[in-house]
Amino acid sequence: MNKQKRKKEVQVSKMAGLTPGSLIHIGEQKTEHIKITVIDYNESQFQEFETKYVDECLKLRNKPTVTWINVDGLHKIEVIEKLGNCFEFHPLLMEDILNTSQRPKFEDFSNYLYLTLKMLDINRKDSSIESEQISIIIGKNFVLTFQEKEGDVFNLIRDRLRHAKGRIRKQGPDYLAYSLLDAIVDNYFAILENIGDRISGIEDEIIDNPPQHTLKTINILKQDLITIRKSIWPLRDTINGIQRSENVLIHKSSALFFRDVYDHTVQVIDTIETYRDIVSGMISIYLTSLSNRMNDVMKVLTIIATIFIPLTFIAGVYGMNFKYMPELDSPLGYPVIVISMGIIAVVMLIFFKK
Amino acid sequence: MNKQKRKKEVQVSKMAGLTPGSLIHIGEQKTEHIKITVIDYNESQFQEFETKYVDECLKLRNKPTVTWINVDGLHKIEVIEKLGNCFEFHPLLMEDILNTSQRPKFEDFSNYLYLTLKMLDINRKDSSIESEQISIIIGKNFVLTFQEKEGDVFNLIRDRLRHAKGRIRKQGPDYLAYSLLDAIVDNYFAILENIGDRISGIEDEIIDNPPQHTLKTINILKQDLITIRKSIWPLRDTINGIQRSENVLIHKSSALFFRDVYDHTVQVIDTIETYRDIVSGMISIYLTSLSNRMNDVMKVLTIIATIFIPLTFIAGVYGMNFKYMPELDSPLGYPVIVISMGIIAVVMLIFFKK
Amino acid sequence: MNKQKRKKEVQVSKMAGLTPGSLIHIGEQKTEHIKITVIDYNESQFQEFETKYVDECLKLRNKPTVTWINVDGLHKIEVIEKLGNCFEFHPLLMEDILNTSQRPKFEDFSNYLYLTLKMLDINRKDSSIESEQISIIIGKNFVLTFQEKEGDVFNLIRDRLRHAKGRIRKQGPDYLAYSLLDAIVDNYFAILENIGDRISGIEDEIIDNPPQHTLKTINILKQDLITIRKSIWPLRDTINGIQRSENVLIHKSSALFFRDVYDHTVQVIDTIETYRDIVSGMISIYLTSLSNRMNDVMKVLTIIATIFIPLTFIAGVYGMNFKYMPELDSPLGYPVIVISMGIIAVVMLIFFKK
Amino acid sequence: MNKQKRKKEVQVSKMAGLTPGSLIHIGEQKTEHIKITVIDYNESQFQEFETKYVDECLKLRNKPTVTWINVDGLHKIEVIEKLGNCFEFHPLLMEDILNTSQRPKFEDFSNYLYLTLKMLDINRKDSSIESEQISIIIGKNFVLTFQEKEGDVFNLIRDRLRHAKGRIRKQGPDYLAYSLLDAIVDNYFAILENIGDRISGIEDEIIDNPPQHTLKTINILKQDLITIRKSIWPLRDTINGIQRSENVLIHKSSALFFRDVYDHTVQVIDTIETYRDIVSGMISIYLTSLSNRMNDVMKVLTIIATIFIPLTFIAGVYGMNFKYMPELDSPLGYPVIVISMGIIAVVMLIFFKK
Amino acid sequence: MNKQKRKKEVQVSKMAGLTPGSLIHIGEQKTEHIKITVIDYNESQFQEFETKYVDECLKLRNKPTVTWINVDGLHKIEVIEKLGNCFEFHPLLMEDILNTSQRPKFEDFSNYLYLTLKMLDINRKDSSIESEQISIIIGKNFVLTFQEKEGDVFNLIRDRLRHAKGRIRKQGPDYLAYSLLDAIVDNYFAILENIGDRISGIEDEIIDNPPQHTLKTINILKQDLITIRKSIWPLRDTINGIQRSENVLIHKSSALFFRDVYDHTVQVIDTIETYRDIVSGMISIYLTSLSNRMNDVMKVLTIIATIFIPLTFIAGVYGMNFKYMPELDSPLGYPVIVISMGIIAVVMLIFFKK
Repeated sequence: MNKQKRKKEVQVSKMAGLTPGSLIHIGEQKTEHIKITVIDYNESQFQEFETKYVDECLKLRNKPTVTWINVDGLHKIEVIEKLGNCFEFHPLLMEDILNTSQRPKFEDFSNYLYLTLKMLDINRKDSSIESEQISIIIGKNFVLTFQEKEGDVFNLIRDRLRHAKGRIRKQGPDYLAYSLLDAIVDNYFAILENIGDRISGIEDEIIDNPPQHTLKTINILKQDLITIRKSIWPLRDTINGIQRSENVLIHKSSALFFRDVYDHTVQVIDTIETYRDIVSGMISIYLTSLSNRMNDVMKVLTIIATIFIPLTFIAGVYGMNFKYMPELDSPLGYPVIVISMGIIAVVMLIFFKK
Repeated sequence: MNKQKRKKEVQVSKMAGLTPGSLIHIGEQKTEHIKITVIDYNESQFQEFETKYVDECLKLRNKPTVTWINVDGLHKIEVIEKLGNCFEFHPLLMEDILNTSQRPKFEDFSNYLYLTLKMLDINRKDSSIESEQISIIIGKNFVLTFQEKEGDVFNLIRDRLRHAKGRIRKQGPDYLAYSLLDAIVDNYFAILENIGDRISGIEDEIIDNPPQHTLKTINILKQDLITIRKSIWPLRDTINGIQRSENVLIHKSSALFFRDVYDHTVQVIDTIETYRDIVSGMISIYLTSLSNRMNDVMKVLTIIATIFIPLTFIAGVYGMNFKYMPELDSPLGYPVIVISMGIIAVVMLIFFKK
Repeated sequence: MNKQKRKKEVQVSKMAGLTPGSLIHIGEQKTEHIKITVIDYNESQFQEFETKYVDECLKLRNKPTVTWINVDGLHKIEVIEKLGNCFEFHPLLMEDILNTSQRPKFEDFSNYLYLTLKMLDINRKDSSIESEQISIIIGKNFVLTFQEKEGDVFNLIRDRLRHAKGRIRKQGPDYLAYSLLDAIVDNYFAILENIGDRISGIEDEIIDNPPQHTLKTINILKQDLITIRKSIWPLRDTINGIQRSENVLIHKSSALFFRDVYDHTVQVIDTIETYRDIVSGMISIYLTSLSNRMNDVMKVLTIIATIFIPLTFIAGVYGMNFKYMPELDSPLGYPVIVISMGIIAVVMLIFFKK
Repeated sequence: MNKQKRKKEVQVSKMAGLTPGSLIHIGEQKTEHIKITVIDYNESQFQEFETKYVDECLKLRNKPTVTWINVDGLHKIEVIEKLGNCFEFHPLLMEDILNTSQRPKFEDFSNYLYLTLKMLDINRKDSSIESEQISIIIGKNFVLTFQEKEGDVFNLIRDRLRHAKGRIRKQGPDYLAYSLLDAIVDNYFAILENIGDRISGIEDEIIDNPPQHTLKTINILKQDLITIRKSIWPLRDTINGIQRSENVLIHKSSALFFRDVYDHTVQVIDTIETYRDIVSGMISIYLTSLSNRMNDVMKVLTIIATIFIPLTFIAGVYGMNFKYMPELDSPLGYPVIVISMGIIAVVMLIFFKK
Repeated sequence: MNKQKRKKEVQVSKMAGLTPGSLIHIGEQKTEHIKITVIDYNESQFQEFETKYVDECLKLRNKPTVTWINVDGLHKIEVIEKLGNCFEFHPLLMEDILNTSQRPKFEDFSNYLYLTLKMLDINRKDSSIESEQISIIIGKNFVLTFQEKEGDVFNLIRDRLRHAKGRIRKQGPDYLAYSLLDAIVDNYFAILENIGDRISGIEDEIIDNPPQHTLKTINILKQDLITIRKSIWPLRDTINGIQRSENVLIHKSSALFFRDVYDHTVQVIDTIETYRDIVSGMISIYLTSLSNRMNDVMKVLTIIATIFIPLTFIAGVYGMNFKYMPELDSPLGYPVIVISMGIIAVVMLIFFKK
């Protein structure tokens, strides 16, 4: 899993030498079909449909209502390109959407804003952490989102839109974008909850008597934290960038909301750093536990050996076949020696007790 | 304990996908009833009562006296909401009050100021560190404080208000807020005193002959320091934010006082960093102590083994049953061999002394 | 290999005490002949030729077309000097081109811009990382590049120029410089891919049963990362410098492109830091694996020794030659002792199981 | 000693909940009586006396001469309070003087400047590092200094004042304050000299054959460095604050002198960091030395054991009592076996040499 | 050697309590006689002489030619003082020149500029790194340099001056100062070359089979790096200070040259940091090597012991003297037992192979 991630990251090399602006999908294909979902709304109207044709959703472009076009799957370049051309996006922006190894970033193209970040998920099968890139483009009356595959954390937002819950239907595209961002960041907490549980699990077994696979478990945990950190760390600057942006597409009234997401992101980063601290401490505790156990093993060996080696020597002495060994002929010889051995053993044991 | 803390921290996931601004209590319920205490004062008047109904304390809203409303317990959302609506607080602010996993922060809503931080306490039973979130809202003629449960560090402030000690009755809400902040920060020193004592305790036992549970003790100490640090570290920026705030709610004359709290906070953080340094040094000292002890154990084994193994070999040689072994028949054989063994043992011992 | 690099780095000492501005080639000579390649183009025209004489390429100086002069090999100082004089470059700039131990940097000489960075490559033979310095000078209608030896990552750019692919023929020298920079940075990803593969390889063998040479492999990997980091880290500031440069030689429209390269560079640096983290964790995992294995070895020794040493002692006792040992004469003596020994061994084994 | 320091640091908890501005002495009482020393001078006049009554020294307040009032001992609050009231100091300033667990800091109260820092000393008895807080207040025509106990590093300054050496009598209170600061910082070098000697001492014994108490010695050294660092580190910002202060109490001509002290402080901090580096390296060297020694011990054991265990086995074989063992009856049996044993031993030894 | 350095550093304590501005030489006397060398030049004239009398060189003060006065040896305070008075230097500047434990720094005294830094050298005898302080003062038509002892890195500059090589004779004192600075920084590369060689030497022996003295060698190397780093690190800010200085004594045209030295300094610092990284990695590699070797030793012991201990036990059993041991009387007893032992040994060996 981790290896695959590492692979993806550097597949940018495929792109090396290409004309800048030439579109190519970087990353593995995670879904079979491209799926385009369109939601169009204002305070009084609501419309939602799914389509395979880009043209269909373009009719909505010039209506004053807010249009949210969500694209799942990035491998059909011609679809992405058509959308991009229609909205007159900069070629470098199109390239960034297709390159799924981006760092989270925010860019202000004056007519529209571009925001890319990572959506994290826990794989059901092997409980590894999976990361999916999502690109959000905010325009005057539209929001475009591009995801690598179906399935996201936005269902509750769709519900709110459908049933006009909360203020979302009364607000513009910037509020919708905020809601999406908020849902993604809130989901990070679920990931951290999972990490926290795994840490607690290891902590329980690490001090008393860590099994050998613990080292492997800690290592996987550590690498998961590195992955998560890399995905989330740059988000801080990204959201800060949105806040400081003076583009009219972000209304004054939305600033407080973005500020709130910013606070949450900082909190997530704080927690990650704390976990990293704890995990790196775990390795040294594990090492110390090993030393402790080694000490115990060696003590057992030392006690047994230092008690019996001298006694065996004494037995060896009286096993010698010299003709003239006066002790051997004495009827007291045997009991005296056996008792002496007993005394030596007891003295040794008392010595080791201390 | 630590696990519970970690749990709480990430329960924000409960909130994931909710409409921003929809109120929900994040954290465990720490008290059964909500308790509202109201103190209303100016230089000449003083009034204090406890109530269960929000309405009762609202009468005081429009009086020019300073009103301090303290709420213990956050689980009854309707109470908090009613208060919030009456004072016309921003929905995000209400959300922050109820979310007890906040980082310390300061926000200026122009008509009122919002400040949240952590109150630390030592649990009597297992002497673990407990953290409680407190939110302070400063308005033109009121201060609102929200705590997770009853019991706080403000009793001396209440006394001063009751008996008009010091200048507190002559000053406005900003001075009251400062006093509360000061009491919380001063209490951090008591926590550090406790940590300091625990460090001294470990230090005494770590170098000479550390018992095995020491590792566990150090680890708990380390995690407590991580928790405290996480609670206090952001406070520096928070208080700095208050100082630099140009809101008229903070009078010029109070600036020096906030500066003073700032200095104390920096001192607390300094001490925490020093303790972290010491504790992380402890682990390597513990590891070295283990190595030292292992060395001692191995030395005993080596000395005993290297002395007796050769001697036992010699005894074994003369225990062989060969027919023709001239030494065995000589009457001097036995004494010569025994004396030789003695000499070998003495030579070995002298060698090991060096 | 690493040693050679280290050597090169400090050969600047050769230069010590020389007149500043006196030209000397610092670094090893990597090619036999100097090779000068000239590409001259605008939207409609294209011309490409190779030459040995500097004069030939100077004719193009005053034409309004964009001229890209590439020089492979730096050891013939007179050639470099002639070029420099003709373009009226500052002596210190000439010195910098010849000193191949430069840090990546950007300098604005107002009439032309100077940019130097490292091109990384993987040696086919021993798969070590090799670094080559490249200097890029951007003028009003020319780009000069100086490389240490033939072979580079620009072939696709040359192709695009030849066949007028993309927008490159329509743009000025700043776009060409950007394209070169982009090709170099994209190539870094290929290097990282190689490093990532090597990390995965080590990870597989490190936890279970690391062979002794693993330590050597990790160490080489670590030093490669140090080398790469040192080559790329300063590039961030360098490209940032180009972006912020207000020189008219960089057109407004190119800013976005340089921004894109900047993002890629940051991503490269991020990945390097992550790899460094992983590799430094590997050493402690390796050390822990060793301890684990030592523990296993010691356990085998301890079990065998503590079982057989007491048994041997018992056998030794009944090997003594005392005249009066009643057990020896009893017909039950032998079977009783052998059974006792069996019981002791079994008890010991059960004890160790726990 | 270290424990005491740690205790003092957190005694601020005593203060928790007190009215801000209520005076209380934080720290241990280090002297029995308060001692007030007054020096009053200008270029032509000089007067010096000791007194127990505050009033006596107040007469000098309105004279244009420079008055230096030094107070040793902080436990008599009424004395300090009287002084403070007379000079009209801010209550928080008075609180800071009495709280001996302050961080070094500089505060500008516009009519006077407040500066607090630590004076370090080496305890004669157990050569531990002791720290004493000193507060300096600079006014228009006075300097007030508050120390915890008698004995300081200012005797040479007093001498210079008495005998009008140097320029000190011609300058104002800012120059006097500078001289005091300079004396304190210069004294830090003496402390570092002591630390340096202790480091050299440990270095000598650590590599060859470190005794067990070395670990304790390194640990004490490390903690002393932590203490010193904590005392001096904030001084950098403090002195920087004085330099940048635009208060007229600091004359332009004195700026250079404060700059000089600043440079010395930076140098002290540099040296402390270097020492910390060295000391933290020592622990890993100590650990490595232990491993080395363990290796040596184990080698001895292994050589002796692997040589004699096989030989003892052979002797054991020929000690068996089988009726039919042809070797036993051969007259060559014994010499052949003894010679074989010798050959095995020699072969083993040669093997271990390699 | 290192100890001496440490000593020197803190001898500033000698100065403690002295009148600021009173001149005292801090550091060891490294030369017997003070030597003053004067070079006076402009584009057409050149004059060079050596003298013992300060007065002689003062005649040149008012001539418009550039005068370079170099003083070797700082222990004759009256000579330094005379020079200082004549050029009207600030007393603190004179103090700084004499105090050889300065950090590199730059100070602008408006009429002249003061620059102090360290000249490093490798001691021929024990190849330790030696550091010598050099002070450079740049005036309108003079450059003064103060060194601790004879011998420097400026001979090539003197040659260039004598033979009017390069542009040096055509430029002012700022260019001369730059040349000196450049020579010193270039010399750092020679020092790094030496360190690099020593690192390569250790690297070769560390992984395979490190001798015990390696630890000592690494430690000395590490401390040398600490020393060098401390000498060079502040130089970055120092040269930056010169660059940003707006004093007319630094001509615009020289700025580029100082920029060049700055780049070299950054490169030196980069290399030092890389070396520190490598050296600190070495210690953990050394420790791991030790563990590896210990593992090998223990394996030998374990294999020998676990094979022979059971066999010896068996031999012991048949060495018992029981009357009724049926095996002993059987003619097959001996061969069966010997063959069984052989089988056990072979099985054990096969087990250990795995």
